[in-house]
Amino acid sequence: MSVVSLIEYADASAEVRAVFDDIMTTRKVDSVNNFWKALANHPATLRQVWEEVKAVMAPGALDPLVKEMIYVAVSATNGCEYCTYSHTAGARAKGMTEEMLGEVLAVASLANKTNRLANGYRVPVDEQFRRS
Amino acid sequence: MSVVSLIEYADASAEVRAVFDDIMTTRKVDSVNNFWKALANHPATLRQVWEEVKAVMAPGALDPLVKEMIYVAVSATNGCEYCTYSHTAGARAKGMTEEMLGEVLAVASLANKTNRLANGYRVPVDEQFRRS
Amino acid sequence: MSVVSLIEYADASAEVRAVFDDIMTTRKVDSVNNFWKALANHPATLRQVWEEVKAVMAPGALDPLVKEMIYVAVSATNGCEYCTYSHTAGARAKGMTEEMLGEVLAVASLANKTNRLANGYRVPVDEQFRRS
Amino acid sequence: MSVVSLIEYADASAEVRAVFDDIMTTRKVDSVNNFWKALANHPATLRQVWEEVKAVMAPGALDPLVKEMIYVAVSATNGCEYCTYSHTAGARAKGMTEEMLGEVLAVASLANKTNRLANGYRVPVDEQFRRS
Amino acid sequence: MSVVSLIEYADASAEVRAVFDDIMTTRKVDSVNNFWKALANHPATLRQVWEEVKAVMAPGALDPLVKEMIYVAVSATNGCEYCTYSHTAGARAKGMTEEMLGEVLAVASLANKTNRLANGYRVPVDEQFRRS
Amino acid sequence: MSVVSLIEYADASAEVRAVFDDIMTTRKVDSVNNFWKALANHPATLRQVWEEVKAVMAPGALDPLVKEMIYVAVSATNGCEYCTYSHTAGARAKGMTEEMLGEVLAVASLANKTNRLANGYRVPVDEQFRRS
Repeated sequence: MSVVSLIEYADASAEVRAVFDDIMTTRKVDSVNNFWKALANHPATLRQVWEEVKAVMAPGALDPLVKEMIYVAVSATNGCEYCTYSHTAGARAKGMTEEMLGEVLAVASLANKTNRLANGYRVPVDEQFRRS
Repeated sequence: MSVVSLIEYADASAEVRAVFDDIMTTRKVDSVNNFWKALANHPATLRQVWEEVKAVMAPGALDPLVKEMIYVAVSATNGCEYCTYSHTAGARAKGMTEEMLGEVLAVASLANKTNRLANGYRVPVDEQFRRS
Repeated sequence: MSVVSLIEYADASAEVRAVFDDIMTTRKVDSVNNFWKALANHPATLRQVWEEVKAVMAPGALDPLVKEMIYVAVSATNGCEYCTYSHTAGARAKGMTEEMLGEVLAVASLANKTNRLANGYRVPVDEQFRRS
Repeated sequence: MSVVSLIEYADASAEVRAVFDDIMTTRKVDSVNNFWKALANHPATLRQVWEEVKAVMAPGALDPLVKEMIYVAVSATNGCEYCTYSHTAGARAKGMTEEMLGEVLAVASLANKTNRLANGYRVPVDEQFRRS
Repeated sequence: MSVVSLIEYADASAEVRAVFDDIMTTRKVDSVNNFWKALANHPATLRQVWEEVKAVMAPGALDPLVKEMIYVAVSATNGCEYCTYSHTAGARAKGMTEEMLGEVLAVASLANKTNRLANGYRVPVDEQFRRS
Repeated sequence: MSVVSLIEYADASAEVRAVFDDIMTTRKVDSVNNFWKALANHPATLRQVWEEVKAVMAPGALDPLVKEMIYVAVSATNGCEYCTYSHTAGARAKGMTEEMLGEVLAVASLANKTNRLANGYRVPVDEQFRRS
């Protein structure tokens, strides 16, 4: 179905297996999702994306659940089916309720609407919003 | 600069003034931003958008700061200059630090990147992500 | 300001002048907009785009004003500043009132909102919408 | 298939049934589409979106068919599968012919093309397009 | 499945058959893809798009493979399933290896990421990037 | 002008200076662009993005000029003003001629057009484009 073959652990190179192992250990799961099996076709991208996801999605000034909900809002905005399914599942696993999902999508869809009203009317930015 | 004239309170109809008054009262400010002065060219849209913003951005299952940060992430994704400036200012007013803004944009830009990797490889959605 | 120099009629090649002449004759104006002066840097694109615009925007099953309003809705959706200004001006020249512009943007922004609700909830297409 | 369960009338709360009843009465149909069954997971959004659709898509300075065609053009621009199917069906129900659909998509796709030429060359907006 | 019927050669008008014949002759194939069968519902668009594709994708200052890879990068950015599949196949037919596809998507996804960082921080354009 | 202050070398932390130094050494320049001065507000993002840009844009299966042209095509598609200016300048520094830029934008804008025709008609993917 995808434009590349999904690479299973059994068929993966040592380089790819090392990343798959780190994903499974970090997430405490016994297999990796199709996204990683597809990226395995380009090991450098697989490693770089996993390292970035691990660092960016970790607890910081924002907690992991808030980060997952921002991910869902952006993925819905871009119409990415895969990321919408996977990050909605990820946010639920971190505690997102149906009510919270409803609010994430209400805010994201409102933003998409007002973004176009601001762009359609070409509203000039208020001076107080600009930093001196 | 905008494609429509910005309607000032002094020149506004009673219908528009009623919305401007509610915005100023609700937000405890003594003037409205350019966005509302532009929407005032179509009173029905001005009223509808304000009522929706007031309801959707209010405290709920998500707190107002989280909602503003989702708004910033979506506005940056769509490249809306006006909304990025206004909602970044709004999120700061609600307590967003520079570190938090850095994480909002790190997550939003990572999502924009992986959305394209998933779409470029056309990764099939894992069965466990679909609800029965 | 642009990433290419704008080519003025006086400095244009015969090939470019021929297109500029057709634009001015067809539109009954005595100069061409910056868009065409920029495309003049790649004559094949200048000619192809002008021929397409002339054919697609001509009266057909839809009248030219409806076509210009669709152009405004798409340009606002994509956040294209230049096209939003130029096609809003074009629609007004063909009779679009402020009330009509208000409705064009109300519909376009509502569509941008519901597009994200449908994509965020991944709503399955109803069978009756698919053609046998 | 969707990330939420579709809520059927038989399983809906009184609050949701009231909106479903109004949709069926207003549209003279005996069931609601999947979009509304998905939004029913967040009743406040279901009510708000339905009220907005009912008001914005009603006859005004633009007739309902023109509004539906603008909706199709925006949905195709955003790549929203659900909205493209549902609003193409809605426009046909209001009288859109295959020739008209062909022109809607010819204009929308041309706008998507010239939006990128204007953005790629960063064409400066002509002074006459800006309002004093 | 599509919102229009796919028009097969046997059912096509002489006008449509002439374009189908040119596509098959130019590409040395004995049938046309679904994209062209769908466009055949609006013959003027079918002819215009085919003439444009034939001219723009031909060898020029850039070779056809580079053009196909740019097409893949844009289609993945827009999330167009059909164009991603068809142009990835087209690029492979012209010599794109899996390693090259991996780099095309690594660059395209990085660009999508930095586009949002630049838009989220609203970074001012450096003077040296603007032409005098 | 930006939503954050641009951090100059003189005011930068040792962590930020280390990245600025590597950018200047790698690119053989004596200052860094505004993009990096803005990212310096979030050092982790500054370092991560620079390391990724350095790795992804390096010579590989694709040469750096082709990569820069893909970057321009994606940035124009997303309407990112900053990235369009900076990567068009970067591509020119690597040898892109005006004719090549013209072809990059002709291909990118054509892709944006056909992406919407495929999405608007919801064209089903041809079986031969899918991998078994």
